Amino acid sequence: VRPSELISGVLAGDRRAIARSITLLEDGDSAGWDVVRGLHSHTGHAFTIGLTGPPGVGKSTLVGGLIAQARESDQDVAVLSVDPSSPFTRGAVLGDRIRLSDHILDARVYMRSMATRGHLGGLSEATSLAMMVLDAAGKDVILLETVGTGQTEVEVAALADTVVLVLMPGSGDAVQALKAGIMEIPDIIVVNKREHPQARVLAKDLRSVLALDRERRGEVPILLTQAPTGEGVAELWTSIGTHRRKTEARGGVSIRRQAQVRTQITRAVMAHLAGQFEDALMTDACVQGVLVAVQNRELDPVTAVERIIHDVFGLGLEDASAVLTRRAATADGQ
Amino acid sequence: VRPSELISGVLAGDRRAIARSITLLEDGDSAGWDVVRGLHSHTGHAFTIGLTGPPGVGKSTLVGGLIAQARESDQDVAVLSVDPSSPFTRGAVLGDRIRLSDHILDARVYMRSMATRGHLGGLSEATSLAMMVLDAAGKDVILLETVGTGQTEVEVAALADTVVLVLMPGSGDAVQALKAGIMEIPDIIVVNKREHPQARVLAKDLRSVLALDRERRGEVPILLTQAPTGEGVAELWTSIGTHRRKTEARGGVSIRRQAQVRTQITRAVMAHLAGQFEDALMTDACVQGVLVAVQNRELDPVTAVERIIHDVFGLGLEDASAVLTRRAATADGQ
Repeated sequence: VRPSELISGVLAGDRRAIARSITLLEDGDSAGWDVVRGLHSHTGHAFTIGLTGPPGVGKSTLVGGLIAQARESDQDVAVLSVDPSSPFTRGAVLGDRIRLSDHILDARVYMRSMATRGHLGGLSEATSLAMMVLDAAGKDVILLETVGTGQTEVEVAALADTVVLVLMPGSGDAVQALKAGIMEIPDIIVVNKREHPQARVLAKDLRSVLALDRERRGEVPILLTQAPTGEGVAELWTSIGTHRRKTEARGGVSIRRQAQVRTQITRAVMAHLAGQFEDALMTDACVQGVLVAVQNRELDPVTAVERIIHDVFGLGLEDASAVLTRRAATADGQ
Repeated sequence: VRPSELISGVLAGDRRAIARSITLLEDGDSAGWDVVRGLHSHTGHAFTIGLTGPPGVGKSTLVGGLIAQARESDQDVAVLSVDPSSPFTRGAVLGDRIRLSDHILDARVYMRSMATRGHLGGLSEATSLAMMVLDAAGKDVILLETVGTGQTEVEVAALADTVVLVLMPGSGDAVQALKAGIMEIPDIIVVNKREHPQARVLAKDLRSVLALDRERRGEVPILLTQAPTGEGVAELWTSIGTHRRKTEARGGVSIRRQAQVRTQITRAVMAHLAGQFEDALMTDACVQGVLVAVQNRELDPVTAVERIIHDVFGLGLEDASAVLTRRAATADGQ
C-alpha cells in the first residue's frame, strides 16, 4: 500500500488505513512518516484525554465508561492504549474485556494498542504521530491510556490536553511519588473502586498532598468512581469538559500545545539519533572496538564517547568541547 | 582546582577532592571528564550494591545498616543517593537521619547525594562516572540508593553489580509492576518492616510473582528485615555476598560489566547529543523558527525533525533516510 492511498484512506476514516498507518509508525518505517506529512494539514480538531496510573486500578474499565459518555454526545472516539497489561493484549480481567467489547462493533469507536521495538524515545514519538493519524481521521476524542507512573508513562500521558491520574486504595507508591514531586500533578485525579473502605481516606490523603502545591491548590478535582457500575463516570466526563473549557479560556491549550510540540520534536530528534547509534552499536567495527577497549579498561569512557561522537555523528572533538564549554558556562551562570 | 590536583586528591582518598570531582560531573563540566580520564586506570576494584524501591519503604535506614555491616568487615564504604526525598536533602524522617549520622564522623564512610540539571540521560551518566571516582578513591563497597520504580530509577540501579529491591506492605504498585513485566526482576528482594501484619503476605505474593519467571525461579532470595532495629540486615549482607560469589563463579560480573559499559556509553552519547540539541532549542534561530511553524501547523513534524537533524547535527536528509530504511529493513527481518 502506498502512502498516498493510506492518506486518502485515513481521511475517509477507513479503519484498515488507520491501522496500517499506525503500524508503520510503530515500526519507525519512513512510509509512515510520509503518511503523517500528508495528513498534517488535516489535524487540529481532536481533543485528547490521557489516563495514567498504576497497573490494576481499573483504567480500562474507566476508558469503557468514557467511550460511552463520548458516544452519548455523538462524538467519534479513538482509544490508544500503551499499557503492556492492557485488554488489547494480555493481563486484563474478564470484566474489562466485556466492558470494552460493548464498543467493538461501533464503527465510530477505534481501539488500538501501541508498542514499539524498544528504541529510545520511540514509544512517545510513535504515540504522538499516531494521535495525528486519528485526529486527521476525524476522531473528536482520543483517549490515551498508559500504565504505570514512571517517567515514560507520565511523558506519554503528557501528550494529552487533559491528564487524568487514576488511583485506588493501595496505590500508596503513587501517592508518595506525587508527594515527593517525582510525579507531576495531573489535571484531574480519580479514586476508582469507591466502595472500598479506604477510598475516602485515599481521597483525603490526596487533598493534603495537593494542598502542598500552592499554584494548583484547589484546582485539581478529586473524583470517586466505581467504573464497573459506571458510578461517577458521568461526573468525570463533566469534569474533563470543565477542564477543557477553563484551559481554552485561559489560552492554556495553546501554551500546552507549544510545550507538546517542543517535547514531541525533541523526542523525535533524539529517537532518530538513538536509532543511528543503535545501528552503529550493532554494525560499526569502530564502535564495537571502542566498547571492548572500555570493557577491558584499556580506554576510559569519556574518550570513548568522544570517539563515537566523532566517528558516528561526524562531529569533531572541537564541536563536542565547544558544546561542553557552553554547557558548563550556562551551568555556572545559574 | 586543576584536574590533575583533583586526580591525585581522589587517589589519596581526599574527601574534598572526591566531592569536587562529583560536583563537576553533576554539572557536565569537561574538567570532571578530565578527572575521570585520569582515574580510569585505577578503577575496577569496588563492588556496587544498588538499592531501589518506592519512596518511604525505609531504604535509607537499610543503607545505614549495610554501612555498619561493611565497616564490621573493615571495608571502606561510599553511599551515592539519587533519591529526591533522601536524608541528604529533604523529606526523610528523623530516624533515618540519626541512623546515617552514626557514620558521618567515620573517615572511611563517604556519603553523597546526586543531582543533575535535568538534561536527558544526564543523571545515570553522572552517577556512573561518580561511581568511577569512588572506585578510584579506594572504596571497597559503593551503595547506590535510588528512589522509585520508574524507568530512570531502575536504569540507575542497574549500574550496580547486585540490585536489591526494597518493598514494604503497601507497595502494591511495585508488585503489580513486577508482575506486568514493567519492572526488571532484581537480584534480591527485601520486605522491610517485617513486624507489619501484612509483611508475610507480601513475601508470599512476591514468591508467586517470581514463580512466573522460569529462568529466575527460586534464584531470587526474599528477605524480611526490620531496618530500624537491624533485624535481618546481617542476613541481607550475607545474601549480597552470596550473590556476588555466585555471579563471579559464573562469569556473571563480566557479562553484566559488558552490558553496563554498553549502557553507560550509549547514555553518555545520547546525553551529549541531547545537550547539543537543548542548546540549539534555546539559541538557534532556525530551530526556533521550525518549532513555531509546527505549532502553527504550517509545517509537519516529520519534515521539522529532518530539518533539525540536518541543520543542528549536520546530517544530510539522505543520511536520515538511509538510517530509516535500514531500520525498517531490520524491523521487517524480525
